[in-house]
Amino acid sequence: MKTAVLTEPHEFEIEDRPRPSPGPDDVLVAVRDVGICGSDVHYYEHGRIGDYVVENPLVLGHESAGEVVDVGENVSRLEPGDRVALEPGVPCRRCAHCKRGDYHLCEDVEFMATPPHDGAFTEYVSWPADYVYELPENVSTTEGALCEPLSVGIHACRRGDVGTGDTVLVTGAGPIGLMVMEAARAAGATDVIVTDVVEEKLSFAGERGADRVVNVAEESLEAAVDEYTDGVGADVVVEASGAEPSIRSTIDAVRRGGTVVLVGLADEANVPFDVLDIIDNELDVHGSFRYKNTYDAAIGLLEDDAVDVEGIVDFESSLDDIDGAFRRAMDPSVVKGMISFGE
Amino acid sequence: MKTAVLTEPHEFEIEDRPRPSPGPDDVLVAVRDVGICGSDVHYYEHGRIGDYVVENPLVLGHESAGEVVDVGENVSRLEPGDRVALEPGVPCRRCAHCKRGDYHLCEDVEFMATPPHDGAFTEYVSWPADYVYELPENVSTTEGALCEPLSVGIHACRRGDVGTGDTVLVTGAGPIGLMVMEAARAAGATDVIVTDVVEEKLSFAGERGADRVVNVAEESLEAAVDEYTDGVGADVVVEASGAEPSIRSTIDAVRRGGTVVLVGLADEANVPFDVLDIIDNELDVHGSFRYKNTYDAAIGLLEDDAVDVEGIVDFESSLDDIDGAFRRAMDPSVVKGMISFGE
Amino acid sequence: MKTAVLTEPHEFEIEDRPRPSPGPDDVLVAVRDVGICGSDVHYYEHGRIGDYVVENPLVLGHESAGEVVDVGENVSRLEPGDRVALEPGVPCRRCAHCKRGDYHLCEDVEFMATPPHDGAFTEYVSWPADYVYELPENVSTTEGALCEPLSVGIHACRRGDVGTGDTVLVTGAGPIGLMVMEAARAAGATDVIVTDVVEEKLSFAGERGADRVVNVAEESLEAAVDEYTDGVGADVVVEASGAEPSIRSTIDAVRRGGTVVLVGLADEANVPFDVLDIIDNELDVHGSFRYKNTYDAAIGLLEDDAVDVEGIVDFESSLDDIDGAFRRAMDPSVVKGMISFGE
Amino acid sequence: MKTAVLTEPHEFEIEDRPRPSPGPDDVLVAVRDVGICGSDVHYYEHGRIGDYVVENPLVLGHESAGEVVDVGENVSRLEPGDRVALEPGVPCRRCAHCKRGDYHLCEDVEFMATPPHDGAFTEYVSWPADYVYELPENVSTTEGALCEPLSVGIHACRRGDVGTGDTVLVTGAGPIGLMVMEAARAAGATDVIVTDVVEEKLSFAGERGADRVVNVAEESLEAAVDEYTDGVGADVVVEASGAEPSIRSTIDAVRRGGTVVLVGLADEANVPFDVLDIIDNELDVHGSFRYKNTYDAAIGLLEDDAVDVEGIVDFESSLDDIDGAFRRAMDPSVVKGMISFGE
Repeated sequence: MKTAVLTEPHEFEIEDRPRPSPGPDDVLVAVRDVGICGSDVHYYEHGRIGDYVVENPLVLGHESAGEVVDVGENVSRLEPGDRVALEPGVPCRRCAHCKRGDYHLCEDVEFMATPPHDGAFTEYVSWPADYVYELPENVSTTEGALCEPLSVGIHACRRGDVGTGDTVLVTGAGPIGLMVMEAARAAGATDVIVTDVVEEKLSFAGERGADRVVNVAEESLEAAVDEYTDGVGADVVVEASGAEPSIRSTIDAVRRGGTVVLVGLADEANVPFDVLDIIDNELDVHGSFRYKNTYDAAIGLLEDDAVDVEGIVDFESSLDDIDGAFRRAMDPSVVKGMISFGE
Repeated sequence: MKTAVLTEPHEFEIEDRPRPSPGPDDVLVAVRDVGICGSDVHYYEHGRIGDYVVENPLVLGHESAGEVVDVGENVSRLEPGDRVALEPGVPCRRCAHCKRGDYHLCEDVEFMATPPHDGAFTEYVSWPADYVYELPENVSTTEGALCEPLSVGIHACRRGDVGTGDTVLVTGAGPIGLMVMEAARAAGATDVIVTDVVEEKLSFAGERGADRVVNVAEESLEAAVDEYTDGVGADVVVEASGAEPSIRSTIDAVRRGGTVVLVGLADEANVPFDVLDIIDNELDVHGSFRYKNTYDAAIGLLEDDAVDVEGIVDFESSLDDIDGAFRRAMDPSVVKGMISFGE
Repeated sequence: MKTAVLTEPHEFEIEDRPRPSPGPDDVLVAVRDVGICGSDVHYYEHGRIGDYVVENPLVLGHESAGEVVDVGENVSRLEPGDRVALEPGVPCRRCAHCKRGDYHLCEDVEFMATPPHDGAFTEYVSWPADYVYELPENVSTTEGALCEPLSVGIHACRRGDVGTGDTVLVTGAGPIGLMVMEAARAAGATDVIVTDVVEEKLSFAGERGADRVVNVAEESLEAAVDEYTDGVGADVVVEASGAEPSIRSTIDAVRRGGTVVLVGLADEANVPFDVLDIIDNELDVHGSFRYKNTYDAAIGLLEDDAVDVEGIVDFESSLDDIDGAFRRAMDPSVVKGMISFGE
Repeated sequence: MKTAVLTEPHEFEIEDRPRPSPGPDDVLVAVRDVGICGSDVHYYEHGRIGDYVVENPLVLGHESAGEVVDVGENVSRLEPGDRVALEPGVPCRRCAHCKRGDYHLCEDVEFMATPPHDGAFTEYVSWPADYVYELPENVSTTEGALCEPLSVGIHACRRGDVGTGDTVLVTGAGPIGLMVMEAARAAGATDVIVTDVVEEKLSFAGERGADRVVNVAEESLEAAVDEYTDGVGADVVVEASGAEPSIRSTIDAVRRGGTVVLVGLADEANVPFDVLDIIDNELDVHGSFRYKNTYDAAIGLLEDDAVDVEGIVDFESSLDDIDGAFRRAMDPSVVKGMISFGE
């Protein structure tokens, strides 16, 4: 099977690899669509993300969907022909985190495209059936692949306990920020404010339904939020930019007793926080890491047209053109590129 | 001011009463719209609801909205001309329930149209400003009045912790069931099943977006839910009918580890529950009483057109014709009647 | 290895069975102490509990502790010589319940001594290492075995969200009621009221620190709770008797907005509940099934002497005398009998 | 009545002021014991805490208890002769925070000894009855006064959701740290680690039951916690020192998925936090501000001897010697000084 392998930074090689056989609890999936995530691009450019270093040739891609072509002997929930989305992290199922239901925090999780685990830019993937989810007829495999970033948004909103009537501030209008916005609306948020420093991204967020957009390069976030909320502040702030000034500003933009969710990965590890504000205003500051138990919800929302994910796709390329696709994806104005394998 | 007073069952008298003056923390509201609730009709027909007996002439009506005409000296949040919804229960603010934020459970709450407290079928009401909520331009006073039943739905969904991706079963397609359905959708429920025994009500629920309707007079609820959910059961069941068979059936229709919310007032106090199922399936059975902290959310959802309440209104009458309006409201096919005071 | 097998009601046979070999993720445990649970006695007397029927010879016993004698190749957390408690239910690790952390609700759980799964009245048990917990030096294997009923108590208190300052009513002073009482105290309950109909059990509960005991055969529970709580009611009621009148009374004894936890298995499936009270007082009624993620807590509390479990043991017998032990355990005045295997 | 007034930094004047009359919802309390809090000492030394500036003569003292001598006409819950503790903050009862039960976040709270509101270093205080709590016979007024710092500890543990079996790290062994330790034990924590840089404080914490003390001036906290928890980290870290290095270290000492509670007021507003750790380990960082709904729990724990507060008292002085008492309280080795008014 044809597989795109990152052999060194900026270098994909298309290899022919043997098609895997599914284990007894696995399904074999013919990949149809795979999203290009910022982390894929980061590995492509730098060969590492923090402590994760690409030391051996690595298959990238963890936003994937396809069609089941074979199932292991213990699998009854799925059958060949089912169109499915793949949840890319499979935990050990045995540690304290797994037993608590926090399987996404399992230290031994095998996560696609995180060294040394291969991802989905390949024609076939064998994957544990319990992390494979059937797609209904009206949900495309493109949407199935984008259940992954949508899951990040759903999980961040759950970490912020976003509910009906909430005012939610989303800092950063990249793919994660946009998915947070979708998930917040779906969870009942009635007011969504979105920030960025790039005007096109803000326009796009506005077209997609943001009630107020704020270009934080040009206007004061605190003033804008104060005005919008009559001085109260946002019930929930979801930080999706990873930019230090934005991270710091969350504390000022949230209301007393409100919640800040940190999801955008910062370049700098250490960001000064106003600790006195966290205490005096009794804030909750919650990290949000990947997701857990979100795929069924993501698919259900897509089936209902309650969220839009296809609208963020800028282009689709073939696996053969993966190099070109990654170069295009490096353009900051691109929100989401996809690799499509055809039917 | 003109006031409709229930003097005895089936007997309204239109009295001229002195217009109240607002106390220092109150606002005086010129009433514009008041919904007729099932409880109003019950007092009209029977002169009592359980232990609450109409012993003296009583003004009914607790679903109300209007326009501020005067404000007390301590009130700065509202001013004459503001269009507002009135939350009908005002608590003592001092008991353990109030201090916990469960002000709706305050034993000394003064609730409109619950003996001995007068309601809103009158031209002017003086009400504590903190239980009066401004309506945005695009929300009508009819919608403002219906924030009350919508609040019942929002609170029931909060009591069931309805969230994105949930399958929610609503038993009973009367006004409360329909409001629960709206609130569940707004909170992210992706599948809503609605039951009733009246075909028109089910059709209406279907038109309003129920994914599946079940006439429980004709088909097995358990079978229908099993089929719809592949044998899993509903994540949350909200019982909104008050009918004993329906109450009993909730336990069978909910999934293992799921939640049943009881909101429909039963005629019979004692209903046999399958205790072994509650234990073996580790269910949560939650009573839901009125609401708390819902008005801002209700108004926000209405402002966003995220819910529809006007669609349940069958007719509007004038205060002078309140008797006719109540007779009409007794027809079981009527979902909601309103008394409108004009501008 | 010597194994006590229930061949038919009232009939144990001591068989010699081959000692199992631990699988790669398992440990082999030499059993030291096994408690006799009410469910064991029930199978002994009736050959069934509800739908669970003893169709083939069955090894009873699920409250067990012992010493590790061998470990599978993947096991690093434990080693021969470790003294350990065994959590008796092992889930599938793959279903929606397991992924949510509700592994105790897994439909495919293999639970010791629940047909067709054998239990611990045998010299050696091979068990998945992640459901085996090391005991610190000052915790005996008797205490280790009794982590099981203590877990039931801890889980019930968690289901009731028992916290500092709470008044907790425990109905039923059998082993489960006593364990709930221990767990409630450990979680910060400042007032514990215990009911029963047997005077000795109440005296025993009183000696173990109940603030108030109520013989519900002789005095009104509602009156006693009203007096003790100045008319407020208990914050949490944990029903641990399974007796219908007791189950019904929970609704009256709990405070408005409080929580009822049902844990005692009823003889009758259907118990009439006052639905209007559940709604008007906005109660939470929570089933509590077995436990999850409790063993570390149980062992920690035992290590700290924060709870007492050995004090409920009435007698210890050898495996050879298991028949006599079960006959003794059928005496209602016996709280807990143990089978001890010696060192 | 005799009243100690802070007229300028380091200057108390004993004035004779008129005894207040209780309003209709108030009780008049003859003060018996008042604790000297670090914030009192701070006002005494510097005349301000952050934005709170002593511009007019101020009565300090907010940890108080006494005896009811008169009650307003609406008060039925208390009567002259009752020994009581006073909760020092009284909210507006009308804002969104109050209605949510977060009355401690009310922007209009009147808090004793926070300019411009007078405190309790005076013979009589008139106070709203709903913030006055009766003490049982076996709880002294010294303990009653110390319900205030104990409440800070209880609230911090609630903010961290401390429960049975938890390992809790408390950074800082001053009065707040010690109260957190008491509250954590009462809530079921089985392992409590305490840090400080002063050896006597650590010894004292050890005598009071800390399982492990760490002098962070001399040994690595992360290493100590790693060793104590087998590399897992603490379930909950409560930061009670306000020292920047300690605040920063919380992120490293807590387990993945765990909770950090910030309660100790920092000197520096801005403290650099490792944002990547907060996200990758999906931490909860919760500010904890004062307390709400804790007094009943605090008194219940004291009645049960489940916590010890009197053991932290170093000395008692009379009101006439308040100046000497404050000078003594400035000694860092003093944990708690009290002003006692005698009977």
